[in-house]
Amino acid sequence: MTVVSVPRVDWAEGIADLPGLTVTVWDLSGPPPRDDIEVLVPPYEVSSRRLAVLRNLKSLKAIQLPTAGFEHALPHLPEGVVLANAKGVHDTSTAELALTLALAAQRGIPQAVRAQDRGEWEHLAWQPSLADRKVLVVGYGSIGRAIVRRLLPFEVEVTVCASSAREGDDLVDRVHAVSELPDLLPEAEIVILIVPLTDATRRLVDADFLARMPRNALLVNVARGGVVDTEALVEACASGRVRAALDVTDPEPLPAGHPLMSCPGVLITGHVGGATSAFSPRLVRLLREQLTRYAETGALEHVVATGS
Amino acid sequence: MTVVSVPRVDWAEGIADLPGLTVTVWDLSGPPPRDDIEVLVPPYEVSSRRLAVLRNLKSLKAIQLPTAGFEHALPHLPEGVVLANAKGVHDTSTAELALTLALAAQRGIPQAVRAQDRGEWEHLAWQPSLADRKVLVVGYGSIGRAIVRRLLPFEVEVTVCASSAREGDDLVDRVHAVSELPDLLPEAEIVILIVPLTDATRRLVDADFLARMPRNALLVNVARGGVVDTEALVEACASGRVRAALDVTDPEPLPAGHPLMSCPGVLITGHVGGATSAFSPRLVRLLREQLTRYAETGALEHVVATGS
Repeated sequence: MTVVSVPRVDWAEGIADLPGLTVTVWDLSGPPPRDDIEVLVPPYEVSSRRLAVLRNLKSLKAIQLPTAGFEHALPHLPEGVVLANAKGVHDTSTAELALTLALAAQRGIPQAVRAQDRGEWEHLAWQPSLADRKVLVVGYGSIGRAIVRRLLPFEVEVTVCASSAREGDDLVDRVHAVSELPDLLPEAEIVILIVPLTDATRRLVDADFLARMPRNALLVNVARGGVVDTEALVEACASGRVRAALDVTDPEPLPAGHPLMSCPGVLITGHVGGATSAFSPRLVRLLREQLTRYAETGALEHVVATGS
Repeated sequence: MTVVSVPRVDWAEGIADLPGLTVTVWDLSGPPPRDDIEVLVPPYEVSSRRLAVLRNLKSLKAIQLPTAGFEHALPHLPEGVVLANAKGVHDTSTAELALTLALAAQRGIPQAVRAQDRGEWEHLAWQPSLADRKVLVVGYGSIGRAIVRRLLPFEVEVTVCASSAREGDDLVDRVHAVSELPDLLPEAEIVILIVPLTDATRRLVDADFLARMPRNALLVNVARGGVVDTEALVEACASGRVRAALDVTDPEPLPAGHPLMSCPGVLITGHVGGATSAFSPRLVRLLREQLTRYAETGALEHVVATGS
């Protein structure tokens, strides 16, 4: 029997029936409940201090993170232990937020909330709908695809781009290259960012990028704050030339009273992308797949590092 | 040549190439530009006083309204003149708003707007997503179907009901009857109203209806204000038991400072359902179909009345 430790009772219950496993609940806060833990799932939000305990687990062979991000775990990875991330568990919730931000901005929800708080009924007619808009999705991994799948029934014209050009799929005719952005942006009435943050994408959205977007276009960021040059965005939005709906910012959290907060046409949510009720059921589904595979083959999928 | 009058230059341009028609622009504000107008399209929003002029048009045979609603035109319909409504032109925009309201309420957009206006960054995590919710759509005409088409990629469980039960279609397994509501409501985490206002649906959502909805459920109204008993809704929302996102209210407009506006968990937009940029292109498409048919056969579809 493979001994697996998970940090929450509900996750333990979700995998309790899998054959070949003994499941124990441990959130790393006290001492380990047993000394033969072979596969460990740490808590969703965990301090570096708590992860330091991993070095003391003599039987540990694999760590399955409950997050897509894994950088925080690398310094604590014991020699020979494999690290797998939770690829895909945030797709549903993040794609849903991208649509929420685009729709709320297009249909005037911020203005409606403010009118309501003033005790006024306001007929905000003839706003531009999401329907008929030309939408450019920058980044076409699994979340990008989840966004496009939700966009299509809204009668929009979708273009996607990724690091390099390739053939299309069941959703789009063609995947353009990021290098084509200068030609794509002047047509893009809504731009949705969902690229990973890398050296190539850091400050991809700079003054030049924003200047190429049409007047009154909307920038939606559900990627990482660092993909956008905040100073350039404040400048472009302060004048009312472009609008923005942002779940992520640079810096994050935004300091109180940051100029971005009071720009006209800017809507900010506080990095809630993947953190909804949609997360746990999808994580439990992933844990079931991963641990079934581990019990059968001794290996995990989605391995991102091995301790050395 | 059939002489057609439309109230806007852009609509005239959208039908200018159709064979068999002479198009003139008239918004009913001055005298008629010619005395041989046979088909007339009145303005989107038009006073009763202006419609009175229709009785003076000796050649008039048909009125094509640019709206789905037609009651306002009935008193001014000259003898023998047919009246057609603009069935379907609001579907896209109204369905889009239903999704906007549901998503904004689920993902905390009102709270985000308020935090931003206070100059604060707020991490509103672990809210219930739209994903995984049980959604009940009450009303399954063309807008109901447009709503369901947009809902399905969000990984929800959709149930629909209409005045009477019938077989399902390409979107749903089955259409339930409104009479089944008492059994359906206790499972409905989100209820979307899109029924016409009739004697049967007036105040359909009363204290009993609301009491059957689960705690913290969301009521979305993109139908008509009169479908909901406002007093019962204020009572159910004031206690925080249910939430609501409403494009339509009774009365409408809501008087300044109406108690519904300050209920927790209530989001109100001011009847913006069909009035977006999506309207004109779809209206022009409908006018092209209708006027092509008229030029060929002398008849319109979607006739709702004939003057007597």
